[in-house]
Amino acid sequence: MMKLPFLKTLNIATSATPFTLDSGDSFSFAPVSYEDYGILNPQKDNVILILHGLTSHPHGASHHSEDQAGWWEPLIGDGKIFDTDRYYILVPNILGSSYGALSALTVNPVTEKAYGADFPSITVRDMVRLHRRLLDILEISTPKLVVGGSLGGMQALEWAINYPEDGADVVSIVAPERSSAQAIGFNHTMRQAIFNDPQWQQGNYSSANPPNSGLGLARMIAMMTYQTEASMARKFGRLRRNEEWEIGNYLDYQGKKLAQRFDANCYLRLIEAMDSHDVSDRSDYQEKVSHKKGRILLIGDHSDLLYRIEHQQVLAAKWSGWGANAHWQDLETLNGHDSFLIDFPILERKLVQFLKE
Amino acid sequence: MMKLPFLKTLNIATSATPFTLDSGDSFSFAPVSYEDYGILNPQKDNVILILHGLTSHPHGASHHSEDQAGWWEPLIGDGKIFDTDRYYILVPNILGSSYGALSALTVNPVTEKAYGADFPSITVRDMVRLHRRLLDILEISTPKLVVGGSLGGMQALEWAINYPEDGADVVSIVAPERSSAQAIGFNHTMRQAIFNDPQWQQGNYSSANPPNSGLGLARMIAMMTYQTEASMARKFGRLRRNEEWEIGNYLDYQGKKLAQRFDANCYLRLIEAMDSHDVSDRSDYQEKVSHKKGRILLIGDHSDLLYRIEHQQVLAAKWSGWGANAHWQDLETLNGHDSFLIDFPILERKLVQFLKE
Repeated sequence: MMKLPFLKTLNIATSATPFTLDSGDSFSFAPVSYEDYGILNPQKDNVILILHGLTSHPHGASHHSEDQAGWWEPLIGDGKIFDTDRYYILVPNILGSSYGALSALTVNPVTEKAYGADFPSITVRDMVRLHRRLLDILEISTPKLVVGGSLGGMQALEWAINYPEDGADVVSIVAPERSSAQAIGFNHTMRQAIFNDPQWQQGNYSSANPPNSGLGLARMIAMMTYQTEASMARKFGRLRRNEEWEIGNYLDYQGKKLAQRFDANCYLRLIEAMDSHDVSDRSDYQEKVSHKKGRILLIGDHSDLLYRIEHQQVLAAKWSGWGANAHWQDLETLNGHDSFLIDFPILERKLVQFLKE
Repeated sequence: MMKLPFLKTLNIATSATPFTLDSGDSFSFAPVSYEDYGILNPQKDNVILILHGLTSHPHGASHHSEDQAGWWEPLIGDGKIFDTDRYYILVPNILGSSYGALSALTVNPVTEKAYGADFPSITVRDMVRLHRRLLDILEISTPKLVVGGSLGGMQALEWAINYPEDGADVVSIVAPERSSAQAIGFNHTMRQAIFNDPQWQQGNYSSANPPNSGLGLARMIAMMTYQTEASMARKFGRLRRNEEWEIGNYLDYQGKKLAQRFDANCYLRLIEAMDSHDVSDRSDYQEKVSHKKGRILLIGDHSDLLYRIEHQQVLAAKWSGWGANAHWQDLETLNGHDSFLIDFPILERKLVQFLKE
């Protein structure tokens, strides 16, 4: 597992105020870990809430010059777009993830063992609710901005619809209104990759013998969907090294690396939550959208293999038609779904424009 | 395994004239199976050679009204585009495949056991050479038309370059000049799926315990790349059945079905051959192309996730620039790589136009 020395953790539930999932399962102990940057002002109105993706974590950026770089390093810091001099930036771990939030790795206070395979199904809506609780405990009523990409973008959409009255500006990147059959299908192959691993043991694997080859293969499949023909042609082409295609070496490395830092039960719960993602699946959908205060920016990328730019375009038009202040932008890169983790100057330009409006 | 009662088989090698692969490996016994339709005319100039894809087979169409349908049923038959009343249509099994051609399933005359994991690496060029031998034995000097899709399209391209003087018209569908890093990457994940199966046994599995879950998963991943977001949205959407997403049920079914009818060692050799596919990888490439007699039609589909239409467009321009009679067409469907097995009326229109010119 990765070391995150700046991680803080709060418990957001008690027996009197349990944290309850869409499944009905209830927790009287529900930790949320996070990293934070900058200073919360007295009015508590300078908060940027950054929501991370599937296998990502709260280390969005380094905390000092010798700290390891974070996944949005070029965007978070003094004088950067998410300016730590002006904003209080909160990057919480998401529900179900391996980095300290309530998940399959959390120790069940009753059994004194990790939940493991017994951890229930979760939804993107549950994830958002956990973070709302975290803000409540920190006495933050309204974030200035809620932003995230991929699964983080799904959470941002849910945030917009769940808390329309809070007035937060919302930026959702490469995320759809609902998961497509294609995305669900790829997740299905990832699930099978884990289930086929003899060390899987129906999820009751020991920490000494986790299903690393299965989780590694799941990661390889995922990596294939995050990139594009053009980006892989540029990076790997038809090069060979050690009697293997360079793209194969790369995938092997990515698979091994993830298996070392992530838990298979966590991974399965998270992709299940992504499959279930559908912000339109609520009786008061239009009403919620029409009441949304604050602006919404849907950023896509026309090269995204999973979610074509039409998703952002159509959704922005629909929400605008219902009275929300919703817009869309195309990053226009060749890096596909992963563009928000690669093409920082392009993403930054879209964000600068939105933030200064 | 599938029953193919109309399959014919010829041995195309002897000790005196062995069949030799690009790897240097040599076979004194090299079977080729095929199905044929229509009648070879006395001049032997009415031959259409149809080359099949990765897991496909020689049963291109039914032979009578009660026979099972073939994979190009709407295209092959009396009065159809590949008119059995006018043409002699040959659909050979490809080298390395599970349907009777020389492959891992072939019994090695020396050991009297199937080659299995000892079967050497093969190339698309080897595949074409095997079929050229088959035509030699049938005393056919020049096919009128050579046509195939996907791996069959790669073979068609190799045919055009290997035998430029034979004057055959060539139609290559959804196939690139060379395999891309993306295609190689997806094949890499399929390979890992098989290697992760405990029944794989380094390829030395028994026929009673083949690595079916691994091969099944490889098939699922492949099926994801043959379709598109739009086609899967239309077919499966977000429907659920038996507590599983419908796309998941579909993939499970496709995986099981392939594992029942295909051999894992064969599958691995074939995707390795696809990875190595590169018609430009020869010192006399331009010379061969410039000497190509007969016309070349490169058919692509703009929705193909594996090979975007630019591949056909750029290749046709290059080959035309070198003096070949090469053109390209876009099927313009939403069915992606599999469009040539689905959108028959559209494909037929492109072929009719080409054949009557």
